[in-house]
Formats: sequence, structure tokens, C-alpha cells
Amino acid sequence: MKFSQLVQRLESYQPQPLQKDTAADPEIQGVAAIEEAAAGTLSYIEGSRFARSIQRTQASAVILPLDPALQATASQRQIAWISVSEPKLLFAQAVRLFYQPFSLEPGIHPTALIHPSVELGESVAIGAYVVIQAGAKLGNGVCVHPGVVIYPEVQIGDRTILHANCVIHERTQIGRNCVIHSGAVIGSEGFGFVPSAQGWVKLEQSGITVLEDHVEVGCNATVDRPAVGETRIGYNSKLDNLVHVGHNCRIGPNCVLAAQVGMAGGGTTGTWVILGGQVGVANQANIGDRVQAGAKAGLHGTIAPDSIMMGNPASPYKTFLKSSAIYNRLPEMHQSLRQLQRQVAALQQQVQQVQSQQESQHRTQESPMQP
Amino acid sequence: MKFSQLVQRLESYQPQPLQKDTAADPEIQGVAAIEEAAAGTLSYIEGSRFARSIQRTQASAVILPLDPALQATASQRQIAWISVSEPKLLFAQAVRLFYQPFSLEPGIHPTALIHPSVELGESVAIGAYVVIQAGAKLGNGVCVHPGVVIYPEVQIGDRTILHANCVIHERTQIGRNCVIHSGAVIGSEGFGFVPSAQGWVKLEQSGITVLEDHVEVGCNATVDRPAVGETRIGYNSKLDNLVHVGHNCRIGPNCVLAAQVGMAGGGTTGTWVILGGQVGVANQANIGDRVQAGAKAGLHGTIAPDSIMMGNPASPYKTFLKSSAIYNRLPEMHQSLRQLQRQVAALQQQVQQVQSQQESQHRTQESPMQP
Amino acid sequence: MKFSQLVQRLESYQPQPLQKDTAADPEIQGVAAIEEAAAGTLSYIEGSRFARSIQRTQASAVILPLDPALQATASQRQIAWISVSEPKLLFAQAVRLFYQPFSLEPGIHPTALIHPSVELGESVAIGAYVVIQAGAKLGNGVCVHPGVVIYPEVQIGDRTILHANCVIHERTQIGRNCVIHSGAVIGSEGFGFVPSAQGWVKLEQSGITVLEDHVEVGCNATVDRPAVGETRIGYNSKLDNLVHVGHNCRIGPNCVLAAQVGMAGGGTTGTWVILGGQVGVANQANIGDRVQAGAKAGLHGTIAPDSIMMGNPASPYKTFLKSSAIYNRLPEMHQSLRQLQRQVAALQQQVQQVQSQQESQHRTQESPMQP
Repeated sequence: MKFSQLVQRLESYQPQPLQKDTAADPEIQGVAAIEEAAAGTLSYIEGSRFARSIQRTQASAVILPLDPALQATASQRQIAWISVSEPKLLFAQAVRLFYQPFSLEPGIHPTALIHPSVELGESVAIGAYVVIQAGAKLGNGVCVHPGVVIYPEVQIGDRTILHANCVIHERTQIGRNCVIHSGAVIGSEGFGFVPSAQGWVKLEQSGITVLEDHVEVGCNATVDRPAVGETRIGYNSKLDNLVHVGHNCRIGPNCVLAAQVGMAGGGTTGTWVILGGQVGVANQANIGDRVQAGAKAGLHGTIAPDSIMMGNPASPYKTFLKSSAIYNRLPEMHQSLRQLQRQVAALQQQVQQVQSQQESQHRTQESPMQP
Repeated sequence: MKFSQLVQRLESYQPQPLQKDTAADPEIQGVAAIEEAAAGTLSYIEGSRFARSIQRTQASAVILPLDPALQATASQRQIAWISVSEPKLLFAQAVRLFYQPFSLEPGIHPTALIHPSVELGESVAIGAYVVIQAGAKLGNGVCVHPGVVIYPEVQIGDRTILHANCVIHERTQIGRNCVIHSGAVIGSEGFGFVPSAQGWVKLEQSGITVLEDHVEVGCNATVDRPAVGETRIGYNSKLDNLVHVGHNCRIGPNCVLAAQVGMAGGGTTGTWVILGGQVGVANQANIGDRVQAGAKAGLHGTIAPDSIMMGNPASPYKTFLKSSAIYNRLPEMHQSLRQLQRQVAALQQQVQQVQSQQESQHRTQESPMQP
Repeated sequence: MKFSQLVQRLESYQPQPLQKDTAADPEIQGVAAIEEAAAGTLSYIEGSRFARSIQRTQASAVILPLDPALQATASQRQIAWISVSEPKLLFAQAVRLFYQPFSLEPGIHPTALIHPSVELGESVAIGAYVVIQAGAKLGNGVCVHPGVVIYPEVQIGDRTILHANCVIHERTQIGRNCVIHSGAVIGSEGFGFVPSAQGWVKLEQSGITVLEDHVEVGCNATVDRPAVGETRIGYNSKLDNLVHVGHNCRIGPNCVLAAQVGMAGGGTTGTWVILGGQVGVANQANIGDRVQAGAKAGLHGTIAPDSIMMGNPASPYKTFLKSSAIYNRLPEMHQSLRQLQRQVAALQQQVQQVQSQQESQHRTQESPMQP
């Protein structure tokens, strides 16, 4: 489509018209990253890191931040542009004009095995070799890709997507507009064993797992159910691939857990928490609202709201950065310390000598002429 | 059931009658965590952390430790109670009176594809779209949930449960009463590549994986087979979700590996080893009996029995806790060191001056009246 | 087969005849690790660690390094041997003479669901309950194990093997002679969400994932596709189980990523990079050719070629080893520092006293006889 049409479409989502230069009005055929963009594509620039890219990009159109210098350069290079305070957000809307993710057509594949007691909403799409067991309820527009196994008594809200070969365990409740990616396992037995003289004894996991609306769970991620009570993931929270959420965890709304994060049993988070890749959250830890943790951090205890944490055990990031910068100088510090110890010992001896010498001089002085 | 009946059932597992107060004898309909318990539920209290909960819980009955103060408070609040040295262990037995995990009915689903050479025990339950390949042997009461794929020549002992979509590779031997959770992969090819001038050359993995009786393997966990010999997981050991066990590892009996633990090739553990979440065990490391490792620890070499380890590379936990407490003071220490260096340099100069002054005084003194 | 025949077979892969002692010429029935080898097996010795094993192994034949002492001991113990500079590489060839991994017979299982638009090469093997969706192309000799789901428009090169229950997402391109292990997910949606006042907004992932020839991806590993552009894994690179590769990563040829490695979005590696277990690579990090990172290292920014890195944040391994050795002496260092501060303070006082004393002596001396 023409760039001017594209802008019209994007402006329809906005409260007011956008700053723009549509003079060149190129035909836009797709979207691309700024460094790889070819003629005929729309790209975007966000942050100072990519600012220089405007001078060499081959994109025909770009979404810019509100930066007059970038706008001028783009116009000068005859690149069409729109300018907003959050270019990546507008780009996300633009991508949808060119790309729709693959989805199954509504309908039930003849090989899908659906227990007679299952309630299905309208326009569901159920793929090949799907198994849906007794008592499950699926809302309108739910899409279940091939090979998914749904255990009994599961509830799935409208428009939720289950990708291939994922497994939803008994009594799990999944909200509306969720996405469960391929191979993820939701509502499986929590890791509950009690030590006894005869070895570990299994604590049956009678609780449930609840995913609120708009939750995403990444490929091969696992969310366990608890012995009693529930495991809950809040509205619009997003879990990346291979994340583990233990029994009884409660994740608040709008949280983001990057790949391979692990939360042990009973951990909780507030809202808008961001955990970097491979972060670990200890048993029963309480993570406050808007906490951010750098990759590989180990969080335990109570983390105050708005903290930015790093390291294991985690510290506030300023402390961590200072300490880790000095970490590599430990050998040098150790050596300096040794040297100081020797120097101080030498000084102590010298001072003692000086003192005793002084004393003897003092005595001499007091009676300097004695024979 | 009435609390008094429940107590009777639980006492039937015990060597002798339990301390109790059944006066209120409430009707018990289920089990719950102490903080979330509603009227009509049984809960338990373990450790000092939850002791105060007895004053506000809504539970109608509780399992208490052998603590007269807690017993008195419970009786006073008309909460029925039983009291034992290990409340959580008794609670695990109580849960089973109210909750039985979902299991398939014995029988073979018509869509299950079972090679004619497969030997099946009595009362097996084989779910939909299961594939069992040539030469496999399944014991009595084995339960295979939908979507499981069993490669050739696998052996599975009595009453073992395979959850949905897990994969058991060729020649794997799984004992009795094991549980393989959804999506786990057992007996897959170990990561064996040999460097050559032309690149990495594959070392075929001709060995096998053996799981002894009562082993559990968590969702999406992976246990590899080796090039030669075997990978073995000992009796009653429990692996949580997303754990990786490399080729040729030998895990002893009654070990617990929390979520996302990784063991590189050839690592071994003794008995009753406990590894926290995201722990890594290096190539060929030997972990002694009863070793415990805190979350994220990195273990290598030989770890003596009964060690409690933390950090990466791991140290005994007391050392680690002391060092990590001081870690955040590194910048301050570095500054102190600098200051000391300046102070010592100044002192050295001063002492030198004092000494030379003293020497000249001494000379003066020796001939004080010289003209 | 006779050892002499075995040697003949192995020599046929070599540029020239091998050093050997075939005098005993035992019958070889299989391969084994040196410590576990029984009579009738072939084993190998590599590195000094296993050198002493030659004195007690029960193997009937061994592959040795070019070490006359080992050769002499083997001959003396009547163990047949061959000797090469890289014994493990030759052993890898020997294993293949005794063991062929299980593979499906060519043919299409009647339960495999293959969209009419799919193009299949010759001699493909498609297992039970496989689903191959519209527009996919599979090369000659491709082997797809049971339960695999292939989304639309996927391309798979000749002789590539897809193990059970793995999932290949839309438009993924997989080269020739690749192996995708059980449960792995390739080409799934990258983790792309943009913050807005209303919460996280999904950035659709319109890009693709490309695996070049001879790539292996481990069990339950995940390789995401990007919003725009591609995620690429280079020729002959090997990913172990539970590895995560984020959107837009570019891994060079002949790299090895051990189990549970995680690469965040946009990371790149050169050639022959080796990442140990649980290593994390940050967003946009650039890892140079032949970089090696120890288990659990956290890499970010640009890592120069040939670096060997450890720790988090990672440092050159020599620095890390020195610093981590001193880490456990931090409490002692802290105490020493305190003691030094006290000693220096005491010295400062003493020196001041000495100085003032000296001054007064000096004054006295200057007029020693004053009344």
C-alpha cells in the first residue's frame, strides 16, 4: 500500500494526527529492521543506538521519535516518515498491516478426540490429533493446534490459542486471549515431597493453576499446580520460553519473565515486574511492584518496590556494578593488603626504636653532663 | 468425613495413637494451606514461621507439631487437632483421603499404536495417540497418557505413569512406580561431538538410560543416554521440571534436583543429595552423600559428604555467606585500602624525618659542647 | 569381528596406515568406556587422566594416543592396540561399526496427515501421528518421528531427522543432515512485547528461523523467530538440550552450546564458539570467533576473538580464577583491613608524640643549659 494510506490507517488508532512527511509517498510492501531494510519497506528508529542508521538505511519509510534532526535527515534523503513519542509501539501496529500470524481455520479436525462432556464455544478451531478430556470447557474462537493434550475439567477462555503439543493439566483455568506456546505444560503436579525415614514421600498436588486474561506462556515453559490452593499468573503477564513457575506462585499483572527464569514454590510478584533471563526467585520470595532484575540475578526474601537488582544474592544494581567492577581487582587488593601489613609492621618497629632512642636521649638530656 | 474418623484413618498408618483433641469433631470436606483455610478444611502447621497462624486460621482442624502451646491455643479456639513430630508428613497422608490424582481407566485406546512385538502387563492404561514401538515391555498397571512416544526396546516397570507427550527413547529402562511428567524426554542421545579439522564429528550414543524404582522426572526435563555404558538415576530420586541430566551421570538414591538443575556429562551423586534450583554440576564432578547445594550453585570436582555449598564456584555455605555479605562493601574496602596506602606512605616519610632528626640530635648530644 | 579386520576398516578412513599391535587379534563384539570395559570390547584412552587405566582395563583392544609407554604396557598385557594422535575421533568411527542409531524405515505411516500441497523427496520416512501442514517441502531421506507437528511453509533439507514430538513453526528453513531432537521447538514466536500505558503490546513476529546444514538442536530446546529479519544457526553448530536461542540471534558455524544456555534477542557469535552449560548471552552481545565461556558465565557487550571467559559479568578466565580464589578470603581481608586501620591510627598518634617530643628536645638542646 501507499505510505500515505498506511499513515491514515495508523492515525486511526491515535488520538490526533501524527507529525509526518509523506511527500515521497512510496509503495510499502513490508516491514524490516533499520539495518537490514530494503527499498519498499517500512522501518523504525528507537533510541540513540540506531540514530545514525537514518543516514544509511535503504528503507523507503521510517517511524521516527520526536526528533527534528532525524526528521530533517529523513526528508533530505527522501525517506518518508511519521514521528511519534514511542516509535516501536507504532511499528508494532504497522507490522499487523503486513503480517497475520498463522491460525487454524475454525472447525474440528476429524482426528480430534473430544470427550462428549466437553463444552465448546463458537468458531473454535481444533487441530489434528488433539485430545480434550472429560468436563473441559472451551470459549468462543479458541484455537487448539495439533497434538495438544487437555486433561479433564480444564477451562479455556475466548480466543485463547494453544500451540502444538502443549499440555494443559486437570482443572487448570486459562483466561481469554491467552497464548500457550508449543510444548508448554500448564497445571502439572508441583514438586512436593516430604522427607521421611523411608525416603521422600509424595505430597499429592490437589490445587489448581489459574492464568488470567492475556497471559502468554513460552515454548516448553512449565507452570505447576500446588498441593493446596492455587498458582496464579496475573493479567497480561508474559512468560518467555523455558520459564519455570513453581507451585503456589502468584505473579501479578503485566509482569515479564524472560527465558529460563525459575520461580521456586510460593514466590510472589507485584505488577510490572521485569525479570531478566535465567533469573531465579527463591522459595516464598516477595518481589515488589515494578522491580527489575538483571539476567541471572538470584532474588530472595522481600524486594522493595521499584528496586533494580543484580547479582546472586541480588543487590541494588548500583552496588552490584561497583562491587563487580572491583571484583577483578581482588588479587591486586589482596597483594596491596599484604604489602601494607609488612609496611605497617616495619613502621611499628621503627617507631618503637625511635621511641626507645628518644627515651634514652631524654634521660641523657636530663642529666647530660653526668660523668 | 468427621474429624474423628479422619484421625482413625491416619492413626492406622502410625505405630501408636496420636495426641489429639477431637472434642469439636467437625465435618472435614477438604485440605488447605493454613493461611487460606476455610471452615470445614483440615490444615497443618510446620515450623515457627506459621506458628502464629493458629491464632487466625479459619481451618476447622489442624495437624500440629508436638507443641503444648499450639495445642492449647487450638483447643481454646475450638479447632480440632492431632499432633505429631512431622506434621507435613501426616498432612501428605491426609491429602490422599480427599484427593486422588487423575488417572486413565485401564484399557487401550483404539488410536494407540502398539507394535505387535510389544509385551503389555495386566491392567495397563494406554491413552489416545500413544505410539509404542517394537520390542517394548510394559509392566502391570502402567499408565501411558495421550501423545506419548515410546521408541523401540524400552522397558517400563509396574505402575509407572507416563504423562502426556513425553518421549522415551530406545532401550531405556524405567523401574516400577516411576512418574515421567508431561513433555519429559528420557534416554535421548547424549551431547557427544569430537572436534576435528573438518568440524565437530558426532560420537554415536550407543549406551542406555536406567531409572530405578520410584523415580520422578519433571515436565520437559531431559535425561540423556551415553556413547557407551549407562546414565542412571537411583531409587526414589526426584527431578523437578526442566532439569537436564547429561550422558553417563549416575545419581544415587533419594536425591532431589530442583527445577532447571543441569548436570554435565559423567557427574555422580551419592544418596540424599539435594540440589537447589538452577544448580550446575560440572563434567565428571562427584557429589558426596547428603550434600546440599543452594540455588544457582556451581559444583565441580569432588564435594565431600554432608557439605552445604553455595555460590559459583561453590564454597561451604558459611564461607559463602560471609564473603557475599562483604562483597557489597568491596568499593568501600577498595577506598579504605587506598587511604591506608596514602597514610602509610605519609607515616613512612614522617618516621624517616624523625629518624634522621634523631640521628642528628644524637650526634649533637654526643658532642654537645663543641664549638 | 576380528580386531585386525576392524583396524583395516578404520585405516580405510585414514591417509596412511596406523601404528598398531594386532598380535593377539581378539574377537571384538562391542565398544566400552575404559573403566567399564569387559573382555571382547574395544575402548580408547585420551589424556593423562585415563592413562593409568591401561594397567587394569579388561578391554581386549584399545585405541591409544601416540605414546610409546602406553603402547608398551598394552602389548605387555596382550591388549591389542592402534595408536593415533586423536584417539576419541577414531573411537567415534569405531562406534559406528558396532552401533547404528534407530531410524524409521522409509515410508509414510497411514496415520500421518500430510497436506496435499506438501512436496516430499524420495525415501522419506514419516512416522505415526505426524502432521505436516500446507506448503511444506521435505528433501530426500528426511526422517520424521511420531508426533511431530510441522506448521505451514516449512522447508527441510535432505537426510534431516526430526525426533518425536518436536514442533517446527511456520516458514522455518532447516538445512541438510540436521537433527532436531525430541520436544524441541524451532521457529516459534520471538518474545516481543512493547510497553504502553495499557500494558505490554504484542509485536507480531513476521521473520523466519534458518538452520544451516548439519545443525543439531537438543531435546526441548527452543529457537525463536524474530519480528523482522531472521534468526540463524550456522553450519554444523550443535545445541544441547534445553538451550534457548532468542529472536534475531545469529550463531556462526561450528559452535557448541551446552545444555541450558540462553541467548537473548539479537546476540551473535562467530565460528567455533563454545559456551558451557547455563551460560547466558545478553541482548545484542557479540561473541567473537573461538571464544570459550565456562559454565554459568554471563556474556555481554563485545567479546574479543579467542577469549576464554568465566563468571558473571564474565572476565578473562585467569582474572576470574584469581579473583574467585580470593573471594573466600574476603572476610579475612576485611578483618585485616580493620586491623590495619587501627594500627595506622595508633602509629599516627605515636609518630605525632615522637615528633612533638623531638621538637621539645630540640628546643631544649638548642639551649640546653638554660636555667
